Amino acid sequence: MSNIREVSRVAGVSTATVSRALSTPDKVSEKTLKKVYDAVEKVQYRPNMMAQNFRATRAWSLMVLVPDITNRFFATVIQGIEDTAQKNGYSVLLGDTRDSEQREAEYIRRVETRQSDGIIQLRPHHKGDPKPAEHLKIVNACGCEGTPYDCVRIDNVGASRAIVDHLIDMGHRRIGVISGLADNPHSIDRLKGYHQSLAAAGIAPDSSLITHGDFTLWSGLQAAGHFTRMPARHRPTAIFSMNDDMAIGALQGLKNASLRVPDDISIAGFDDTEYARFSDPALTTIAQPGYDLGRCAADRVLRLIEGDEDATADIVLPHELILRQSTGAHRK
Amino acid sequence: MSNIREVSRVAGVSTATVSRALSTPDKVSEKTLKKVYDAVEKVQYRPNMMAQNFRATRAWSLMVLVPDITNRFFATVIQGIEDTAQKNGYSVLLGDTRDSEQREAEYIRRVETRQSDGIIQLRPHHKGDPKPAEHLKIVNACGCEGTPYDCVRIDNVGASRAIVDHLIDMGHRRIGVISGLADNPHSIDRLKGYHQSLAAAGIAPDSSLITHGDFTLWSGLQAAGHFTRMPARHRPTAIFSMNDDMAIGALQGLKNASLRVPDDISIAGFDDTEYARFSDPALTTIAQPGYDLGRCAADRVLRLIEGDEDATADIVLPHELILRQSTGAHRK
Repeated sequence: MSNIREVSRVAGVSTATVSRALSTPDKVSEKTLKKVYDAVEKVQYRPNMMAQNFRATRAWSLMVLVPDITNRFFATVIQGIEDTAQKNGYSVLLGDTRDSEQREAEYIRRVETRQSDGIIQLRPHHKGDPKPAEHLKIVNACGCEGTPYDCVRIDNVGASRAIVDHLIDMGHRRIGVISGLADNPHSIDRLKGYHQSLAAAGIAPDSSLITHGDFTLWSGLQAAGHFTRMPARHRPTAIFSMNDDMAIGALQGLKNASLRVPDDISIAGFDDTEYARFSDPALTTIAQPGYDLGRCAADRVLRLIEGDEDATADIVLPHELILRQSTGAHRK
Repeated sequence: MSNIREVSRVAGVSTATVSRALSTPDKVSEKTLKKVYDAVEKVQYRPNMMAQNFRATRAWSLMVLVPDITNRFFATVIQGIEDTAQKNGYSVLLGDTRDSEQREAEYIRRVETRQSDGIIQLRPHHKGDPKPAEHLKIVNACGCEGTPYDCVRIDNVGASRAIVDHLIDMGHRRIGVISGLADNPHSIDRLKGYHQSLAAAGIAPDSSLITHGDFTLWSGLQAAGHFTRMPARHRPTAIFSMNDDMAIGALQGLKNASLRVPDDISIAGFDDTEYARFSDPALTTIAQPGYDLGRCAADRVLRLIEGDEDATADIVLPHELILRQSTGAHRK
């Protein structure tokens, strides 16, 4: 095992300088830092980073809290976070919380005990959630309106309005919704947009047209049953599903009931995951800038770690309506 | 900020006992441990875990190396790992390596510097890869034949044979393959099974029937083009795709060329991801026990960490052929 004296010899600097370079790199010149790091690589020096970081008060890592690791949209956000983190010398640790408060608390403890420097939360902030502790450097990368800490998000209300307006423009008046869980903040924002669109078009809301899933394929299949079991005259002629996975599940339910998409019924999704392009028919949906949400959230948390003490930021990135074959004109 | 003396007071034990409970919990009685942990929670004591763990020589965390976080199959393996880790008091940190050696090395360094106790690798071991360093506690959860360290896997050769035998039983003789990258160990094992099945049925291999993708939806779509552009008499009547995503991509390519599945051409996948059940038609595929692969790999790495010094283990879990609507009898 190599030691700090070997690094010092190869780098041509004192052991005190090596120590300073490793513990407080910002107090050492770029040129010296490079010499030390090159030497560290060359002699394969592996300081005990836990002791090292304790002194340096920086772990050079970000903790990302992911509610569901199997969700493809989150995977894209994570890639944006990682590229930004790596560029800035940080590694990324993922904590799959599965929407469990206990698991989330365990991962946050790792930050409080300085094994990570900051947190990027992918779960939206629920109304009843406590505000994160003041000292935590935390940013929400998939936020909603009213997130009480730093947040990067799209305009979920506006995006939902864009997709429902599109369905209304195609002549649909009975528009069903496959919502996420009722208390999910994304569901709440998107339902708000749906109601705004109906109101603007003078369409009276009908609560029998709203059903709930949990953002999974299976729940979309079940939700389709809610509509296919309705008498044809009550059935919606178009459905807005609050994510692509539920829309893909619903497509199967509609086909099982011999309903043709979009001839008999239109359906639109949300997210524009890769599978949306490969479903049959391909899904009309809202493209979220997943990668950029991740990139911006990482930028922001790094600024918080660096001690940038701005007021709380609410960063809204643009979304895009993607028209494909799953939506068509209403046939009278 | 609370301190160890407050914990000692609330727990009703000495500070030395608190210290021992936190650094070497196995040397303290269950009853005392509970008192200390309850007190820690009550006074919200946050020891500096990095310094703490340095002394305890255990980080109570596992590092999982994932080549592609967007791959749904890996997500299932990770859930098996996490449940087992949590039951044993370990947390799980994920490193998304994106098949980059540099990123992988960065995460392994975190283990070498004791920020994690062991590694679970989801990337199969390539022939040219160096063997992991002796001192690393590492297990491969998605291994192949010949992995030179602890490994949990399915019999990829046998699984591939099961699916190709099924196609031969349905009367197919010209069987195409959408392989993963040629040097991927899973591709190599599965191609071996394909050739064994052909040989057993007396079918001469034809290299024009083998094309390569990279396990993504898009590469499956492109691979389909390789077959649809062939003159009909040369075209395979059935395709074995080495994962479900490429099969789903290929389904779209076959439809674009007006080939009906399975009437004109059969296609089978591998993995049995949730999307396989929701494609149109639903995919015949091989179900891998993803969750159990993760569970077994976590069990094994925990035993290595505990100092269980068995010989290298090669654990093979059962797979299952799942018959759905994407494969049918060959029409003469």
